[in-house]
Amino acid sequence: MQNFEYCNKTKIIFGKETENRVGSEINAVLNEKQKDKRILLHHSGGSAVKSGLIERIKGYLKAENIEWAELTGVQPNPLLSLVKKGVEIAKNEKLEMVLAVGGGSVIDSAKAIAAGALDDGDIWDFFERKRTPQESLPIGTILTIPAAGSESSTSCVITNEEGPWKRGMHSPFNRPVFSILNPELTYTLPPYQTACGITDMMAHIMERYFTRELNVDVTDELCEGTLRAIIKNAKIIFNGGENNYAARAEIMWAGAIAHNGFLDTGRIGDWASHALDHELSALFDIAHGAGLAIIFPAWMRYIVSVCESDNAVMERLARFAEKVWGVNIGDNKNAALEGITLMEDFFKSMSMPVRFSDTNIDPARIPEMAKRVVHFGQIGNFRKLGENDAEAIYRLAAR
Amino acid sequence: MQNFEYCNKTKIIFGKETENRVGSEINAVLNEKQKDKRILLHHSGGSAVKSGLIERIKGYLKAENIEWAELTGVQPNPLLSLVKKGVEIAKNEKLEMVLAVGGGSVIDSAKAIAAGALDDGDIWDFFERKRTPQESLPIGTILTIPAAGSESSTSCVITNEEGPWKRGMHSPFNRPVFSILNPELTYTLPPYQTACGITDMMAHIMERYFTRELNVDVTDELCEGTLRAIIKNAKIIFNGGENNYAARAEIMWAGAIAHNGFLDTGRIGDWASHALDHELSALFDIAHGAGLAIIFPAWMRYIVSVCESDNAVMERLARFAEKVWGVNIGDNKNAALEGITLMEDFFKSMSMPVRFSDTNIDPARIPEMAKRVVHFGQIGNFRKLGENDAEAIYRLAAR
Repeated sequence: MQNFEYCNKTKIIFGKETENRVGSEINAVLNEKQKDKRILLHHSGGSAVKSGLIERIKGYLKAENIEWAELTGVQPNPLLSLVKKGVEIAKNEKLEMVLAVGGGSVIDSAKAIAAGALDDGDIWDFFERKRTPQESLPIGTILTIPAAGSESSTSCVITNEEGPWKRGMHSPFNRPVFSILNPELTYTLPPYQTACGITDMMAHIMERYFTRELNVDVTDELCEGTLRAIIKNAKIIFNGGENNYAARAEIMWAGAIAHNGFLDTGRIGDWASHALDHELSALFDIAHGAGLAIIFPAWMRYIVSVCESDNAVMERLARFAEKVWGVNIGDNKNAALEGITLMEDFFKSMSMPVRFSDTNIDPARIPEMAKRVVHFGQIGNFRKLGENDAEAIYRLAAR
Repeated sequence: MQNFEYCNKTKIIFGKETENRVGSEINAVLNEKQKDKRILLHHSGGSAVKSGLIERIKGYLKAENIEWAELTGVQPNPLLSLVKKGVEIAKNEKLEMVLAVGGGSVIDSAKAIAAGALDDGDIWDFFERKRTPQESLPIGTILTIPAAGSESSTSCVITNEEGPWKRGMHSPFNRPVFSILNPELTYTLPPYQTACGITDMMAHIMERYFTRELNVDVTDELCEGTLRAIIKNAKIIFNGGENNYAARAEIMWAGAIAHNGFLDTGRIGDWASHALDHELSALFDIAHGAGLAIIFPAWMRYIVSVCESDNAVMERLARFAEKVWGVNIGDNKNAALEGITLMEDFFKSMSMPVRFSDTNIDPARIPEMAKRVVHFGQIGNFRKLGENDAEAIYRLAAR
């Protein structure tokens, strides 16, 4: 096991009707910091408005004498231009906190605004790894899409439309001070978004699971168990259980667990698939979860093909097939391949794309994507990958 | 799933040689609070002195210009009298923080001192549930015995020798600001203490596992997986692996996970066995883990005997036997009983007592213990238990 540090200060408020606590939670934060009660209310302007959630939230804020400026228009793969607008508003209006209402895109946008609001330089520096945030406005969230795990993670991913570049920024300041998770708010999600979210949280666990680190039994078990619970409850939701509170609750909590940093304590995750997907999202505006459903099986098949004689790698792939997908291991390679097929079948059962041809991705741009993905150097840790490897993986995804 | 709140602010610093960071971690806490650098250094005065750990820690403190008062003499089942002494020292010398070096007893003693130092009333009020702490000195820990999980829990258990009463006090202020976990420090633990610790952490998970809450798949998986990992690595340690870093690391991290509050999010645990054991510890000074090795099988056998017709209960007991002990379920009752026997065999393999007759516990005092254990009313949630139930369980343990 690797040495590690773990500290996650996000207060999770989970369950039915919990969004009505948002005003008092914000007050608790601002009173402690002796701040004025003016916040940025940040959301997409779409479904949360239609459902009446935003109006209800405004009522909760008013009841606690909290004022707000409102910034809407967040899109999937949230844009730097909107972040810059948010930073400007936060600075001009001297806002004290950012409240994100939505999924990972809204929360990531809020995180970037919160960091930019207390910084005098170019916010994009943080994503180009030139500088790291030294402080941030406190962030609160009301989650409506279980997927990115942004509600208690250190991650923030923003797309700079000038590239376009999709880049991540990791900082302890990115952890929200509180996150409200009410599974009831997810009943009305379109099946596509539910499926993207489930794929995303599974990918977060798999990135952590595929490690070279030996003797990490506890976290191996936590990863496998959480994946099994996700698959079980996803099947319930996709078999008529859209309004099944228990299944929605399991998925919502699993989404946070998948990315709160707990499951990879002591291990070094892979993260090549996330990098490979970022290029799909940047160039073709593919939803993150959908891109991962395409990339992850291709990445695994590539690993099988190039690591066939590496016992440690093949054993881990076979173990994954056994523990998560119930494959009986005879031969490691066959078990690994069967596991990949079962995973792909599962993604397909939720109507996720699993090949470029299921989407608008143009295979002619594979060389360009392979070049872009190694912008910061080789990707991945389970196996280090260069431009040629990336191209081969994209080609497997384009079959 | 029950609504829940979860927030654990303890910073875990895990791995080899991490204790050398103690000075800088304390400085980070005190600088942020703009406090003077005078702390209470609290430990047993035993093995941590002999091993040279305390001397090394003093060196790390000096190097960071941190001054300390020292209070030693903590015993297993830590005593209120020493807590009161610590409170007096902390108040008189205006100490700003408590550093605990040791296992759960030292950390619990430190937690009580930290709460008492900022309170003008009788500290025992907190344990008699008359009042709750409103603040606390910050607590740092260097853990030397993986067992109680006190290093990141809200729990604190103290024995008032005037009764004697052993009582718990739960408060978010009990969570340490940081805890340093170096598995190397556990190589020299006597096998008995290693075994008590393993039993204790398993009991913490089992108390959470035995719930009436349905549809808690994620946390069911986390509990079962952590238990399997503990059992696997305990066997490694007890088969010549005393100095096996990987196994010691798994056990140490599992001990924290078992009691940091994460595994019971959304569920209501039982906790009758802990209450039943507290009477053994209070009257006969039995180590907590050893008492639990006696009580838990007896509690489970009693539950089987009185809940035979309750399908939900029998299914959970059978599932526990299957997932944790590898029992094939035919009939639920038989599977449950086989699981209990395997658990007992495992405790015995670590030389834990499993009956009163393995210890100095006098069965003549069973009626008295049964009366004492319901001091605050019925115990347990998986099944509510009164005085007669408690007596029956003690009698099973005395067979």
